Amino acid sequence: MKRSLGPRALLYPAPVVVVGSYDATGKANAMTAAWAGVACSQPPCITVSIRRSRHSHAAILERRAFTVNLASQDQVRQVDYLGIASGAAEDKFAAAGLTARRAATVDAPAVEEFPLVLECRLLSATDLGVHTLFVGEVLEAQADEAVLGAGGLPDITLLRPLLYAPGQGAYYEVGPRVASAFSVGRGIGGA
Amino acid sequence: MKRSLGPRALLYPAPVVVVGSYDATGKANAMTAAWAGVACSQPPCITVSIRRSRHSHAAILERRAFTVNLASQDQVRQVDYLGIASGAAEDKFAAAGLTARRAATVDAPAVEEFPLVLECRLLSATDLGVHTLFVGEVLEAQADEAVLGAGGLPDITLLRPLLYAPGQGAYYEVGPRVASAFSVGRGIGGA
Repeated sequence: MKRSLGPRALLYPAPVVVVGSYDATGKANAMTAAWAGVACSQPPCITVSIRRSRHSHAAILERRAFTVNLASQDQVRQVDYLGIASGAAEDKFAAAGLTARRAATVDAPAVEEFPLVLECRLLSATDLGVHTLFVGEVLEAQADEAVLGAGGLPDITLLRPLLYAPGQGAYYEVGPRVASAFSVGRGIGGA
Repeated sequence: MKRSLGPRALLYPAPVVVVGSYDATGKANAMTAAWAGVACSQPPCITVSIRRSRHSHAAILERRAFTVNLASQDQVRQVDYLGIASGAAEDKFAAAGLTARRAATVDAPAVEEFPLVLECRLLSATDLGVHTLFVGEVLEAQADEAVLGAGGLPDITLLRPLLYAPGQGAYYEVGPRVASAFSVGRGIGGA
């Protein structure tokens, strides 16, 4: 017997992403968000949801572009700051001691110090309520060599991304490997 | 200097969700997906992306409803099985020893043995490529008492959800708490 919690978007865990954009004056901005996910493998698409009140909201609509940057857990102070402060009021890159580098394929800034960036072309923006759902096509992914695993792609244990727990107001780190996917479930039913 | 990885949706970590639906014959089905995320806080909405070839794809469109169930890491074998097998070919609930319980608010089955379920009304379905992006409004969340924290909401350390690392084909667990959100970044800039 489960307990009713009412209508709540309690999905665990949420990723912690830093969204980069240029505003109308050309100033680079970065804001932290946790409402994000992969939307399609081919073409590669991701979603990120942003409140209309955020400075980045208009910027993404105007430039039709954004970056999604993933920080390491060692960068948690900077990540949290980028979620608290507003780019309308201050130069967040400068305040956090971060470098804005123009993305290779889209009109948006990447956070140079963060180990992974996804450069996104805006495909759609849908107002759902307090958040607008942005869908972006990833035109290019770039990562620091230090976080790449044997296969040439990022290794989550080297990347050490932050997780966010909705409703708890806390960041967590990635724990140990549990099992191989598309493997550990074989032997059940016809699998 | 970062290395180019080409166009790839490398977002870490992805959550591991089990999507419940009834097919045209009324048979309950459950499939595992990792392309999912929160889309809006109010009204509470989530996204989940599913390939057109999956049995659940047509079922969700027909009933305009689905559930998103979160398992504990101890249930990883069942979760992985639900991602490998097809509901077109077998009764996955029965094969995995799981119980389909009709959701309280939508026409879709919940997985009774999994600790958390989000009952969703389909808001939209958008074909992006190999995946269709489903946006659902969460009409009701329900959880086992055992995973609830002090505030009456799930505690991620009690829920112990699985994470998925894109490109690595592996599940991970949630690690230790890193810091408080909206707090650890204060003191930088004007925050």
